[in-house]
Amino acid sequence: MNYQIIRYMLGYVCYFEAAFLALPVLVGLIYGEFQVCAAYAASALLCAVLGVVFTFRKPKDRRLYTKEGLVTVALCWIVLSLLGAVPFYISGEIPFYVDALFETVSGFTTTGSSILMDVEAMSHAGLFWRSFTHWIGGMGVLVFILAILPLKGGAFMNLMKAESPGPSVSKMVPRLRDTAIFLYAIYMGMTLLQFVLLLLGGMPVFDAITLTMGTAGTGGFAVKNTGIADYTVYQQAVITIFMILFGVNFNTYFLLVRKKPKQALKSEEVRTYLAIIAVSVAVITINILPMFPNLFQALHHAAFQVGSIITTTGYSTRDFNQWPPLSKTILMILVFIGACAGSTGGGIKVSRIVIMVKGIGKEIKMLLHPRSVYKVRMDGRMIEHEVVRSVNVYLAIYVLVFVGSLLIITLDEKDLVTNFTAVGVTLNNIGPGLEVVGPAGNFSSFSPLSKLVLCLDMLAGRLELFPMLMLFVPSVWKRRKTAKRAS
Amino acid sequence: MNYQIIRYMLGYVCYFEAAFLALPVLVGLIYGEFQVCAAYAASALLCAVLGVVFTFRKPKDRRLYTKEGLVTVALCWIVLSLLGAVPFYISGEIPFYVDALFETVSGFTTTGSSILMDVEAMSHAGLFWRSFTHWIGGMGVLVFILAILPLKGGAFMNLMKAESPGPSVSKMVPRLRDTAIFLYAIYMGMTLLQFVLLLLGGMPVFDAITLTMGTAGTGGFAVKNTGIADYTVYQQAVITIFMILFGVNFNTYFLLVRKKPKQALKSEEVRTYLAIIAVSVAVITINILPMFPNLFQALHHAAFQVGSIITTTGYSTRDFNQWPPLSKTILMILVFIGACAGSTGGGIKVSRIVIMVKGIGKEIKMLLHPRSVYKVRMDGRMIEHEVVRSVNVYLAIYVLVFVGSLLIITLDEKDLVTNFTAVGVTLNNIGPGLEVVGPAGNFSSFSPLSKLVLCLDMLAGRLELFPMLMLFVPSVWKRRKTAKRAS
Repeated sequence: MNYQIIRYMLGYVCYFEAAFLALPVLVGLIYGEFQVCAAYAASALLCAVLGVVFTFRKPKDRRLYTKEGLVTVALCWIVLSLLGAVPFYISGEIPFYVDALFETVSGFTTTGSSILMDVEAMSHAGLFWRSFTHWIGGMGVLVFILAILPLKGGAFMNLMKAESPGPSVSKMVPRLRDTAIFLYAIYMGMTLLQFVLLLLGGMPVFDAITLTMGTAGTGGFAVKNTGIADYTVYQQAVITIFMILFGVNFNTYFLLVRKKPKQALKSEEVRTYLAIIAVSVAVITINILPMFPNLFQALHHAAFQVGSIITTTGYSTRDFNQWPPLSKTILMILVFIGACAGSTGGGIKVSRIVIMVKGIGKEIKMLLHPRSVYKVRMDGRMIEHEVVRSVNVYLAIYVLVFVGSLLIITLDEKDLVTNFTAVGVTLNNIGPGLEVVGPAGNFSSFSPLSKLVLCLDMLAGRLELFPMLMLFVPSVWKRRKTAKRAS
Repeated sequence: MNYQIIRYMLGYVCYFEAAFLALPVLVGLIYGEFQVCAAYAASALLCAVLGVVFTFRKPKDRRLYTKEGLVTVALCWIVLSLLGAVPFYISGEIPFYVDALFETVSGFTTTGSSILMDVEAMSHAGLFWRSFTHWIGGMGVLVFILAILPLKGGAFMNLMKAESPGPSVSKMVPRLRDTAIFLYAIYMGMTLLQFVLLLLGGMPVFDAITLTMGTAGTGGFAVKNTGIADYTVYQQAVITIFMILFGVNFNTYFLLVRKKPKQALKSEEVRTYLAIIAVSVAVITINILPMFPNLFQALHHAAFQVGSIITTTGYSTRDFNQWPPLSKTILMILVFIGACAGSTGGGIKVSRIVIMVKGIGKEIKMLLHPRSVYKVRMDGRMIEHEVVRSVNVYLAIYVLVFVGSLLIITLDEKDLVTNFTAVGVTLNNIGPGLEVVGPAGNFSSFSPLSKLVLCLDMLAGRLELFPMLMLFVPSVWKRRKTAKRAS
């Protein structure tokens, strides 16, 4: 284990956090919230100082292997969250640190679950910071830092592998750094476009900025107690479309921009993703039709909710807790499916589902013709055996983490649906669940222990289980020399 | 596809069903229930006639490959259930055929879910038949038939593979037919022992017979509306112990009888199974302690319920719907774990869980040391890669079947917990679930469509998914010649 490089990386994360915190300071100044402003400024200063301390001694050994990559990613996100919670706490806007941490983890992991009872009581600076964490989290902040920071050869690859969502079916262009910068350009471009479209629809600037950042990161924090319910149909429709667009594999946009539309449209994952959305919207529309005055309204709300849940954004226009069981069950299943790999969304990811189903097909064929050789294919290419296996193992770990978390938060004596959906929505980075944690409720009534477990679930979900899991494997923490002797 | 051999096998199943139905006729005569008796006699006659029709033309081609094996097993269980439901229907004791079918499938698959509102209103013959189906189902009737019926070489192996639960980690003695007869001797011996112990505890003969058959098959049909609640503590304790014993891998008993106790005790599956039981009982005992007058009573009921659920028997002494969320959640998790492979119990099976967890361990090690080679081991032996893969694929199919069934029964507009546990307990062959289908409720209020879906789930659960899945694969139904040309 190369501790030096991890420390050094953590230092850089502190620097970046300081820079990030400068923005809410600015927002606070604009709205004249000087007291809150001071809290953010102090937090930024704290981060900067920690950055200096951590990066003071340069690491001699700059090598970063898979193990270090995974641990670095996990620790960076934890540090990012621990420090990001500080201004909420010292400004007094969230009086308990565990609550502040929950809110920050929920922000950075683009979950959008909240412990706040009254969102509108928050300062503009606070609300901005909340939504800004979504936008940063959606970008995958570490890859961003690395696009700037120079490191040895394989390091960038190892960190990117650990932080970007989904099984890596395809490798993009060989120059990863260039690809990352390219993808960020698309991300920012789309963010800007949505912001402008919302402004044109007459949305106030502050709401447009925060909601756009929440959509881009597929986060889900809103700035009104009613969520998205009070905005106009046009504004809701813009958000619906952009939620679905941000859930598409960014590889597709990459190919489109590079003028390879044929290749872009061939993606089985994106096709499956759009098909699942279409079918779910159709079924839910029919199912909820009696609750709405006309077909258009039912369709509008069904599309918004399906887009919000499958992309794991978690915005809501209606309390879907009141919808009929079929619609609720479909939404619950979408929670687990999630968006495309290589998007800002969470969940198990559509590509994993596709690979899983194809793996089943292969198994059945092999059962029927034991002597034949079958390969799983996707987008016309052969999928390596290792990918299929790791998808299956991923599901197995997923189930174990789910069950373990469920058991701990069950100690709070809440009802089964609340517990089940609370774990489901945090592990999949959605936001609201059902019953107590439904769109009209929040997570504030959980015990501190449960909140911490749910924080770990959010991080595990965002980082796709493995990096967080590494932290609990004792052999990972051996120093390099010892490890060498042992192997 | 060799249709002749399948028809021939189905004919034999009809013969056996006729023989099975003779027993409730006898019970009816003893208790003077002549009308019901006639219904059973008529049904037996029907089965015998069908047997003659199906076996009249002997098959020329007696080969039976994996494909035919799987389809034969699935169809035999379906025919067994369709015919087994006839006496319930024509005696008028269950006026709707779909309900009668549900009850019979629930019996043969050793599930124990019921649509009966008032069990005590049934005749002795009917109650006996219900419980007898559990005992037959627990034996794996086809292997039983095959132990008697002479077939070509691999045939027996192919059918046994399809019908016996759990991944085949070890091959027992090479002479499979002998092994089967040996295992049945153990099954019958244990059944007899429990029956005698219950009689010694002062239980009426009829109750002792039926409850013993329900325990042996890990079924769960009771003969009182209160389930097992009104029996003495001694009687309940005997049932607890035998439920747990019938959930142990019969391989262990086989080794014990063959005087290889060391090898028998080394089984990781059985150890894990007992450890899960011990931990669950301890936690639930502490959790429900305030609801009981003393520690012994809490322990007694916790042990009974844990034994009943993990072995997928489904007997109940208490309405655990009323227990605190932690206990309910633990029981819900045990529903999915299930008993040992090679036992009469259902569920995912402890060995699959063990292999799954070991697969995760392997994946983590490979992530840390990508160039090393790791193998999953169990009971000191290497587990073939194919077994690990098929366990993972099994879980994937399991999830898909679960989700599909859930979506269909959700159309009945029941609450989420009812739907979720209804699918869970039928797919895992348990019996009672929570809420509407809880220990104090039943399945009668579901629509006929939902009941049929749940029937398929019970069969899929009992036959471990693949045989039932085969019925839905179009290429399976090609005639042999066509298949040859295609391959």
